[in-house]
Amino acid sequence: MSDVRFVPNGIVTLTTDFGTSDGYVGAMKGVVLRHAPGLALLDIAHGIEPQNVSHGAAVLRAACPEFPAGTVHLCVVDPGVGTARAPMVVLAGGHAFVGPDNGLTALASAALGGVVEARRIDATGALASVLPRVPSNTFHGRDVFAPTAAALASGHVAPADVGPPLDPTPLPQEPPVREADAVRGHVAYVDRFGNAVTNVSAEDLSSLDPDGRSAEAAGRSIDLVATYGDVEEGRPCALVGSEGFLEIAIRAGNAAASLGLTTGSPVRITNRSKR
Amino acid sequence: MSDVRFVPNGIVTLTTDFGTSDGYVGAMKGVVLRHAPGLALLDIAHGIEPQNVSHGAAVLRAACPEFPAGTVHLCVVDPGVGTARAPMVVLAGGHAFVGPDNGLTALASAALGGVVEARRIDATGALASVLPRVPSNTFHGRDVFAPTAAALASGHVAPADVGPPLDPTPLPQEPPVREADAVRGHVAYVDRFGNAVTNVSAEDLSSLDPDGRSAEAAGRSIDLVATYGDVEEGRPCALVGSEGFLEIAIRAGNAAASLGLTTGSPVRITNRSKR
Amino acid sequence: MSDVRFVPNGIVTLTTDFGTSDGYVGAMKGVVLRHAPGLALLDIAHGIEPQNVSHGAAVLRAACPEFPAGTVHLCVVDPGVGTARAPMVVLAGGHAFVGPDNGLTALASAALGGVVEARRIDATGALASVLPRVPSNTFHGRDVFAPTAAALASGHVAPADVGPPLDPTPLPQEPPVREADAVRGHVAYVDRFGNAVTNVSAEDLSSLDPDGRSAEAAGRSIDLVATYGDVEEGRPCALVGSEGFLEIAIRAGNAAASLGLTTGSPVRITNRSKR
Repeated sequence: MSDVRFVPNGIVTLTTDFGTSDGYVGAMKGVVLRHAPGLALLDIAHGIEPQNVSHGAAVLRAACPEFPAGTVHLCVVDPGVGTARAPMVVLAGGHAFVGPDNGLTALASAALGGVVEARRIDATGALASVLPRVPSNTFHGRDVFAPTAAALASGHVAPADVGPPLDPTPLPQEPPVREADAVRGHVAYVDRFGNAVTNVSAEDLSSLDPDGRSAEAAGRSIDLVATYGDVEEGRPCALVGSEGFLEIAIRAGNAAASLGLTTGSPVRITNRSKR
Repeated sequence: MSDVRFVPNGIVTLTTDFGTSDGYVGAMKGVVLRHAPGLALLDIAHGIEPQNVSHGAAVLRAACPEFPAGTVHLCVVDPGVGTARAPMVVLAGGHAFVGPDNGLTALASAALGGVVEARRIDATGALASVLPRVPSNTFHGRDVFAPTAAALASGHVAPADVGPPLDPTPLPQEPPVREADAVRGHVAYVDRFGNAVTNVSAEDLSSLDPDGRSAEAAGRSIDLVATYGDVEEGRPCALVGSEGFLEIAIRAGNAAASLGLTTGSPVRITNRSKR
Repeated sequence: MSDVRFVPNGIVTLTTDFGTSDGYVGAMKGVVLRHAPGLALLDIAHGIEPQNVSHGAAVLRAACPEFPAGTVHLCVVDPGVGTARAPMVVLAGGHAFVGPDNGLTALASAALGGVVEARRIDATGALASVLPRVPSNTFHGRDVFAPTAAALASGHVAPADVGPPLDPTPLPQEPPVREADAVRGHVAYVDRFGNAVTNVSAEDLSSLDPDGRSAEAAGRSIDLVATYGDVEEGRPCALVGSEGFLEIAIRAGNAAASLGLTTGSPVRITNRSKR
C-alpha cells in the first residue's frame, strides 16, 4: 500500500473505447474544460476494443503509472452503463482514477502500489453542483465521469468528499499457474504490431532456469530471447516486453497473425532441459 | 438566436476527416501554434468518414456545445476544396466555427441557439498578413482555416473583420416526417459500437403515446426502452441516446451489423396499440 | 544549411507507429510530463504503418516544418529497436528531432534547410540522471526518447550535451529520374483519401512543357490539372498536392483503390505533345 496522498497537478488523461470517429471523446473534453478551463488534457488511447474491460485495464497499466503523481485518469470502458454498476473514484500512488467500478483500473492501481482509497460517486454530496440528478442512460463518461474528473483535477472537490467508501470490483481474469518445471498462462491482448502479450510476468518466470527456458504456444516451441536483435527476421521468439510481461513476437513480422494467437490463447513456459 | 458574444478563451478544437496516419492534422496544429504558441489545442475526432459532411456535422453537434463559450472550432470535411465553395467563420452561442461553407457546422450551431453572425474569409482584409494570397488547391485546412482559427482564438482578429457577411449553406438532409400515429426518419450515422443513430429527436416522438411506442427498422419491430439495463443482452432495442436522438442498439452487441442498418436506412416509430 | 539555433519553446510533438489502441503513446506522454509537467504535447499521427520508416518520414515532412522554431519532435518508428542502431538528436531550422537513427527524420530536416547538428544519445553524459543505464529491449520510445525530448524541451539539457556527434543515416529511397522528355518516379505513400502521393516534386516537373504534361500510372494516361475543381467527379487526375509533390487523385473517389496503385507503383510524367 502506498501512503502517497493525492495532490492534483492539473493533468487529466483520457482512455476510452469511443474510437476517433464519433463525438463522444470530444464531448467529454468539452465538459472537463467547461468546468475547469486551465486543465491539461492528454489522450492515452481511444481505440480500446469496444466494451473490452481487460484490454482497457492492460492499456491503463502500461500508461498511467508513467504520469506524475497528482494526475487524474478519466477511464471509460463501460459495458454496464445504464445498469447498477457504481461510478467510482480510486486513489493509488498519488494518482486518481475516475470511471465505472468494473475492474478497468485494477491493474493500473495495483502497479501504483495498490488502492489507497475508493469512493462511490454520489450526485447528492459535494459534487451535486456539477453532476446532473438524472444522468443520461447511455453516456456517463460525459455526464458523471468528466465533471468528477474536472472537480478533482482542479481541486474543487477532495476525493474524500466524492461519496461513500467502496470496495472496488477486481478485474475478472485468471492469474498464471506455476507448476514444478513450468508456468502456464494465456495471451492477455495482442498489440498493434501483432505481439501477443501474455499475463506471465518476469517474476512468474523466476523459478525456471534462466538459461534453458522455452515457450510453447500455438502448438510449437519458441525460444526465449533477451531482445529482438537476438533473433533473425521472420522467426518467432518470446521475450519479456517493456511492461515486464512475456510476449510472443516475430521481428519484422506479425506473430499473432502468423501463429494464430488471440486473446486467451494458452502459453506454457518450461525448462527446455527438462522436457 | 443567442445573444452571447464571442470572447476568445484560448481553446481551439480540431475535427477532420484526415485520419491518424497522415501529416495533415499535424500540419494544421503546427500552423495554429506558429501563429499563436500559447493556444490549447484539443482533438475532437479525425476519423470522420472521408468527405462525409453529414457525419462530421453529427460529431460536431455532439461535441462542440459541451466546450466553454469562447472556444474556436476548426472543422475540415471539405469535399469542395478547390471549387468555389466559400471559406467561412460562423458564430453561435459565443462559440466560433471555422471551416468550409458546406453545412458541416449547421447542426452544432443550431444546437448552440442558431447562427448569430457568419462571414466569408477574405484574404485581402484584416487576415491578409496571415493568409496566403494563393492558397494550395487541395489543403485549405492548413492554408486558410488554421491561420484564421489562430487569429480568432488569440484575439488578433475580430470576427467582424474576417470578411463580408455570408448566408451559411444548410446541411442537405431530410428532416423526420410526423404522421398521424407515427414518425418516419432514417439512420443518420452508425457509431463505433454499432448503434444506429437516427435523425428522430425525443421531441419528434412527443406526439406519440409514451407507453406504447414501437420502432420498425430493418423489417422488424423493436421495443422502445429507457436504458440498456431494461433489455437482455443480445436483444435489439430502441432508445433515446445521449444527444437526444432515437438510436437502435443491441446491449453487448453491434446493432447495425446484426440488423443490416446503414446510414440512410428508414426507421418508423408508431403507437404500438394503434397498429 | 540553416543557421537558426535551437531555443526550446515548450512544445513537444509525437509521431509514432504505435496506433491508438495500446498504452505505448500514453506511456511516452506520461514520461515526458513526469520529467517536465509544463510542456505542451501535440499528437501529429500515431497511425504510421507499423515499422514503415518511409511512411513516417513523409508524415514528418508534411507536419513538422509548420510548427514554430524551438519545437521538439519525438519520432518513433523503430524497426531496429534492440539492435545496434543509434538513438539520436538532430537539429534543423531551429527544430529538434529525437528518435532512432534510421532515416525517419531525413525528409523533415531537409525541408527545414538541412541538418545543422546531430548527436548520438549517450546515457552516461548530461542525460545520465534521466536515462536508465539499461533501457528495455523493446521500448526505447518510453525509456530513451521521451526523457531526452523532455530534457531538451524544458531546457534542462542542451543539444550539444546529449552525446557525441553523429552522421545521420539517410532515408533509403530512390529519387525520381529526369529523362529527356519525361520524369520517372513512384508512389511514395497512399493517404487516407486514396490519393497516391509520388516522390516527384513540382521542381522535378519544371523541365517539362507546363501546358502539355500527362502522367502515366497503372497502365493509363492521366491528365495533369491545377485543382480538383478542374476535373469532373469520378475521373482520375494528377496534380501537385499541398506539400509540393505530384499525386494521382480522383475527385470524390479513391484513386489508389480504383486504379490499383500502392506504395512503389511506378509513375511517369511526359510531354503529351511528344508522345
